[in-house]
Amino acid sequence: MITLNLVTSNKNKVREFQQILGDSVKLNHIFVEYPEMRSDDPEEIARLAAKQLADKLKMKVIVEDSGMFIKALNGFPGTCSAYAHKRIGLKGIIRLMKGVRDREARYMSAVGYCEPGKKSVSFLGVEKGKIALKIMGKNGFGHDPIFIPEDSQRTYGEMENSEEKKQFRRRAVLKLLDYLKK
Amino acid sequence: MITLNLVTSNKNKVREFQQILGDSVKLNHIFVEYPEMRSDDPEEIARLAAKQLADKLKMKVIVEDSGMFIKALNGFPGTCSAYAHKRIGLKGIIRLMKGVRDREARYMSAVGYCEPGKKSVSFLGVEKGKIALKIMGKNGFGHDPIFIPEDSQRTYGEMENSEEKKQFRRRAVLKLLDYLKK
Repeated sequence: MITLNLVTSNKNKVREFQQILGDSVKLNHIFVEYPEMRSDDPEEIARLAAKQLADKLKMKVIVEDSGMFIKALNGFPGTCSAYAHKRIGLKGIIRLMKGVRDREARYMSAVGYCEPGKKSVSFLGVEKGKIALKIMGKNGFGHDPIFIPEDSQRTYGEMENSEEKKQFRRRAVLKLLDYLKK
Repeated sequence: MITLNLVTSNKNKVREFQQILGDSVKLNHIFVEYPEMRSDDPEEIARLAAKQLADKLKMKVIVEDSGMFIKALNGFPGTCSAYAHKRIGLKGIIRLMKGVRDREARYMSAVGYCEPGKKSVSFLGVEKGKIALKIMGKNGFGHDPIFIPEDSQRTYGEMENSEEKKQFRRRAVLKLLDYLKK
């Protein structure tokens, strides 16, 4: 059985990883805050964090960096999603998108994996969608109540936790599992 | 004569440092992009960058991290100022502040200094001001055309380069010079 040590201070993330992995993988939660780099590239952020944590904690680790990239805002809030969300909230994004016709957005998850003393690797999961006209639903966390995934009429905030939800995270995690099984 | 090695990829910053320092200090520009950390605290970002660069380049270095912190937006764009500016621009900030009465903001400059193998130090310069109702002027860079410093009616974008301008940067740099002279 594969064991994964997920380093994060975000309990919602742990819950979502658990749901994706099911019973096939043993998931250890390591609740540690760690320094992250500023970058335009979520994979670069995830790789560097995984490398530093693996060497420091002396264990195999995974980390995840995710964000919502809005086309009409040139990718904002992107890798600053958590920082921006804490400050301008969902209302800030809705305000920036008021009257904007092109609502296209992508949610991205970059999972970084590293073994102590080794080079880190990363896996990207992407999901297309659009920005809702208003805040809808209360499920999930972060930008969930304003992101409508492709082929849906509802935001992530309106959906119950399920296998269909958060494909971007699932895609990145499944790529990692494929890598680990090889 | 004091020599300072300023590491930055921002030519505007070099010009402003040169103006603050005048002829009393020899300023070397080192145009290098370097990894920065994600943090709420500009001083932490500056200290870590200075430490890494001093050890890597094997010379005394200074770096600067600056940003505009808007009270009504809980400090946004703050340490994400450059990232946000590149994506949502001045118009984005004006839009987020539309109809907001409390226009208070602060510009902050954190200068980090480090000698190879030593601990890094940082110096903070703060300047109060307010967010303009619209974009005014074209001078300077970054958020200059929407920031009106305290006791002024004009934005930084409307002011010529002068000793009065950019007190936040001057304050941080003068603290550093005081430290170096001791």
